[in-house]
Amino acid sequence: MTDLPSPLPQIAARMANIAPFHVMELLTRARELEAQGRSIIHMEVGEPDFGTPEPVLQAAARFLRGGQVHYTPALGIPQLREAIAGFYRTRYGVGIAPQRVIVTSGASGALLLALGVLVDPGDEFLLGDPGYPCNRHFVRVFEGVPRALPVSATSDYQPTVDQVGAAWSTRTKGVMVASPANPTGTLMPGSNLAALAGLARQRGGALIVDEIYHGLTYGCEAETALGIADDAFIVNSFSKYFGMTGWRLGWLIAPDRYVRDIEKLAQNLYISPSTPAQHAALAAFRPETIAILEQRRAEFEARRDVLLPALRRIGFDIGAEPRGAFYLYAGIGAFGIDSSTLAHRLIEEAGVAVTPGLDFGTNAPERHVRFAYTTGRERLEEGAERIARLLERG
Amino acid sequence: MTDLPSPLPQIAARMANIAPFHVMELLTRARELEAQGRSIIHMEVGEPDFGTPEPVLQAAARFLRGGQVHYTPALGIPQLREAIAGFYRTRYGVGIAPQRVIVTSGASGALLLALGVLVDPGDEFLLGDPGYPCNRHFVRVFEGVPRALPVSATSDYQPTVDQVGAAWSTRTKGVMVASPANPTGTLMPGSNLAALAGLARQRGGALIVDEIYHGLTYGCEAETALGIADDAFIVNSFSKYFGMTGWRLGWLIAPDRYVRDIEKLAQNLYISPSTPAQHAALAAFRPETIAILEQRRAEFEARRDVLLPALRRIGFDIGAEPRGAFYLYAGIGAFGIDSSTLAHRLIEEAGVAVTPGLDFGTNAPERHVRFAYTTGRERLEEGAERIARLLERG
Repeated sequence: MTDLPSPLPQIAARMANIAPFHVMELLTRARELEAQGRSIIHMEVGEPDFGTPEPVLQAAARFLRGGQVHYTPALGIPQLREAIAGFYRTRYGVGIAPQRVIVTSGASGALLLALGVLVDPGDEFLLGDPGYPCNRHFVRVFEGVPRALPVSATSDYQPTVDQVGAAWSTRTKGVMVASPANPTGTLMPGSNLAALAGLARQRGGALIVDEIYHGLTYGCEAETALGIADDAFIVNSFSKYFGMTGWRLGWLIAPDRYVRDIEKLAQNLYISPSTPAQHAALAAFRPETIAILEQRRAEFEARRDVLLPALRRIGFDIGAEPRGAFYLYAGIGAFGIDSSTLAHRLIEEAGVAVTPGLDFGTNAPERHVRFAYTTGRERLEEGAERIARLLERG
Repeated sequence: MTDLPSPLPQIAARMANIAPFHVMELLTRARELEAQGRSIIHMEVGEPDFGTPEPVLQAAARFLRGGQVHYTPALGIPQLREAIAGFYRTRYGVGIAPQRVIVTSGASGALLLALGVLVDPGDEFLLGDPGYPCNRHFVRVFEGVPRALPVSATSDYQPTVDQVGAAWSTRTKGVMVASPANPTGTLMPGSNLAALAGLARQRGGALIVDEIYHGLTYGCEAETALGIADDAFIVNSFSKYFGMTGWRLGWLIAPDRYVRDIEKLAQNLYISPSTPAQHAALAAFRPETIAILEQRRAEFEARRDVLLPALRRIGFDIGAEPRGAFYLYAGIGAFGIDSSTLAHRLIEEAGVAVTPGLDFGTNAPERHVRFAYTTGRERLEEGAERIARLLERG
């Protein structure tokens, strides 16, 4: 070409506000060290270490033997939408029309659709901080403005109704909460959900509730916001409780009025969710699958009961009782070191991978790390010992 | 609740500019008629009627027997990125670093990422009309402005360099073309791609080339823009040539400079593409799979050679020679009826489903319909006879 060299087209401004997963760099480093023969205990991984439950695998294999893996309706196959509605009936005693169930490409797809039909440029969404970082990025992608509500152990790391009310402005389009929450494992009681829903309704805004860790609660059951506020947007997933991360399948329950627009958006943004995943997931609600999942739930609880006291003994500050998901969010004030440095030293000197606070927002990330108990109890104990040795050594 | 009833939160303005797939309503009607026992010949379906190739199914089954279906890196598993790069080498003689290959959730995922890192609010993107409707909707989703370039049979339904140059404004961020194109099945010659790339480069804009129908060309091979313009964004898919629609897997080749931001966006928007699909797709490039695909390509060509003359005999105006994909875009001026009415009458009175022009833009959609030859030759012949009888009856 004879053209003069010219700069490549500029990267969109939104990208400057979208953070990478910092933990991925640690994970890369962990793999390098493992390749060198070092033993690394993984407490950074945000997915169950268990495989896909056998009945789900079998359902997938049966479906694939037919060989016909075509597009499905954008909102999902009717049988799965009905099965999800049925799950709300049997597990929560909540009746819901299958027409309001939207099968998505993971919970990510559900967030994409919900925020895509709600967020206009400049619209604000209120979110707890620390929280799952993608939530604020989805708001930003649609040119909305995520507003962080700093939360602490005092309120179980959940935004309070007063806090949301005080932060609500004329530009606020809604509020998003998660129960159980990532990175803290804390729940929001039904009474708070009801009050939040009432507030959102009164202000003409939306309530989005992330319930992707439902099923993974210990010594208690999480209430679905759907049974409390029929006009909330509910995001859920087959990834965590159902052990199907890599299949990329989730769902959204939306108020009737939005379903037609959500369908248009799904048709245009991804045509349809994965067909093998949908057929596999039909087996996710069967009693034999649930029996497997409940065993796993018990194992996660046992792991928490090992790791939580061990970390507290070392001096980690875990103020709010983590009752769900598979995370512990720990203050590191006792150690006189920032969390990124600590994470770096833990992996290099102790062979333990954890996630620094940086991945969860801007509310004192340097003073917190997240532990995931997605590895076996012996490994967790060994990890805690390694951490103790490193920190005692100073 | 004691709150006064208040309106539900408003739907985002973008949704008013995002059209549904109109053909879905016809499909619903077709299924109703079939449920009543009516025979419907489907010429509306935009996906191959063949199942997933056997070697791909076997690769999926082997992978699933392991049961470990976890998240993958956001950009895809390294083996698949390397296999895609290898495919460019063997099929096109084009060398490309695997680091520039981004595995996505279908071509939809590739468009989402490419436009997400390129489009700022108000940025314009130039697109041929008629064209694949989702393209303009992706631009709109990111608050960009799609600019339709009306194209006709005269230029093989492809935008010309002069046309793009004349339409390019200070707000133009880039131009998107497809070869082979949907709904017309026409190709853009390499010389035009080179000139377009030069123009985009000169203006500091991006060229996105949709190559998802590559492999499905008849009597010719499509050139990849990658061999012509190393700085173009290339969108491709395992859906069409590789027969893997329902798996939702595609890829994007991006200039080096954008890969890090694309990775951030992928991490946040969908975490990773489907794991079973990625492992299945490893078998897509194997010789035994390619042999199956080439037989299918021959069958599509034979179908085109049946349907194209049959429609011309009836009086449909197919001016530009369709040499790829599995579509014929036909003018219906001879029949004195608009395309939506024609599509309606065809399904109700003749039992033939076609897609009205409305699904492909605003450039004379009422005067065109799209035929897909995604059903067997005998059915296509029978369909053409039914159409002839209806139109002769008037």
